[in-house]
Amino acid sequence: MRAKAVFYHAGCPICVNAEQTVLGALDRDRFNIEVVHLGTSKDRVAEAEKLGVASVPALVLDGQPFHINFGASLNDLK
Amino acid sequence: MRAKAVFYHAGCPICVNAEQTVLGALDRDRFNIEVVHLGTSKDRVAEAEKLGVASVPALVLDGQPFHINFGASLNDLK
Repeated sequence: MRAKAVFYHAGCPICVNAEQTVLGALDRDRFNIEVVHLGTSKDRVAEAEKLGVASVPALVLDGQPFHINFGASLNDLK
Repeated sequence: MRAKAVFYHAGCPICVNAEQTVLGALDRDRFNIEVVHLGTSKDRVAEAEKLGVASVPALVLDGQPFHINFGASLNDLK
């Protein structure tokens, strides 16, 4: 069974870069990857926050948040 | 030919976690991964800095630095 990887972003250039490069480097045979745009899916900001996401872009792997560089604070997306 | 991925760290708990989880999720069929401990390989701090690494843990993919969470500043490893 593939593990779940969720990438939260807000469409910013830093987010796009992280998505293309870091997310693009993940092993897709081992992960089901979901990409969530918190700028357009504002209803999922609370979910991201609960997972420990403080800024975007962020990748949640094994339930742990990994903030990749800094694009925008989650507070600015509420 | 595999692309190069370099993971810079300093042995901190945040570094170890990022290494196990994020680095462990990369597609090893597409990347040659090198792990560099800047605490013990201080001669490589200048190289990391030149690549744009400002803190560890950081992953350099396609020549671009991606800082993953925050363990320690590069300045503190000099």
